[in-house]
Amino acid sequence: MGIFSKDIRTMDDLFVHQLKDIYYAEKRIVGALPQMIEKATSPALKSAFESHLGETRNHVRRVEQVFQMHGVAPETVDCPAIDGIIEEADEVASDVEDKRVLDAALIAAAQAVEHYEMTRYGTLIAWANALGRSDCGSVLRSNLNEEEAADKKLTKIAESGVNAAAA
Amino acid sequence: MGIFSKDIRTMDDLFVHQLKDIYYAEKRIVGALPQMIEKATSPALKSAFESHLGETRNHVRRVEQVFQMHGVAPETVDCPAIDGIIEEADEVASDVEDKRVLDAALIAAAQAVEHYEMTRYGTLIAWANALGRSDCGSVLRSNLNEEEAADKKLTKIAESGVNAAAA
Repeated sequence: MGIFSKDIRTMDDLFVHQLKDIYYAEKRIVGALPQMIEKATSPALKSAFESHLGETRNHVRRVEQVFQMHGVAPETVDCPAIDGIIEEADEVASDVEDKRVLDAALIAAAQAVEHYEMTRYGTLIAWANALGRSDCGSVLRSNLNEEEAADKKLTKIAESGVNAAAA
Repeated sequence: MGIFSKDIRTMDDLFVHQLKDIYYAEKRIVGALPQMIEKATSPALKSAFESHLGETRNHVRRVEQVFQMHGVAPETVDCPAIDGIIEEADEVASDVEDKRVLDAALIAAAQAVEHYEMTRYGTLIAWANALGRSDCGSVLRSNLNEEEAADKKLTKIAESGVNAAAA
């Protein structure tokens, strides 16, 4: 993250830095999804990725809105966690040959991304509330709800045939 | 992960490689937790980390058991995702000065680790079942249950005073 430097002195500093972390992550995901859409074979999976790309673009805008509500300029910080998770996702997208196995691997990669975002949004909402900024928390909650729904949809697609076909 | 190389041809290959990934991750976490225990100030948080260190050592053994059940030698693969997540956790442990803010940051870091494990175990269980190895899935389920419980406990500790104290 590069964010936990000595200049983090208050909860407010911590909140803003975590916001910069998820801002970086959402933008990285917007960049990564098109390749996953291209590689997916299952029409249901392709369509889920496509619809999540639209949602993710919206998440970037909502995070920018929270920066604005909090009176801080939108800015990213490097985040080795999401870089590592996406590095793994990229490897899936390019290295598994069997199309059915690849679909299962792509779902796993995407769910790792979703879970990273879920934990970060959960934290951000709790911190926003602790800081008396439930208005910011409420905007972040919209993103969290969509990440949770995307994760559940991927589980459904995996269970409804992708895993069985791959096995 | 370094795992999604061209030699992953079947779902069974994918399952074994994912197992090597979580094996690496669990061992990394055993190595990382002592520093987090040392840095935590809240007695409830310190105790939660201590008890999770014991659980995590047990998770390593359960993963070894699944390797054995599956007739494969236990082996790790590099996993940039958990490396990145722990890199961020290390930064928290050394870079935030205020003890109360540090506790909040440590909880966030630990929950990112938990969520990574939750998504990987969720995937491994689904794949084990698809491969007709619900016996392996059942051992992995024990680890998942403990990760989920650890995550919930951390949320409770955050909400029961750590976040408020930090803010």
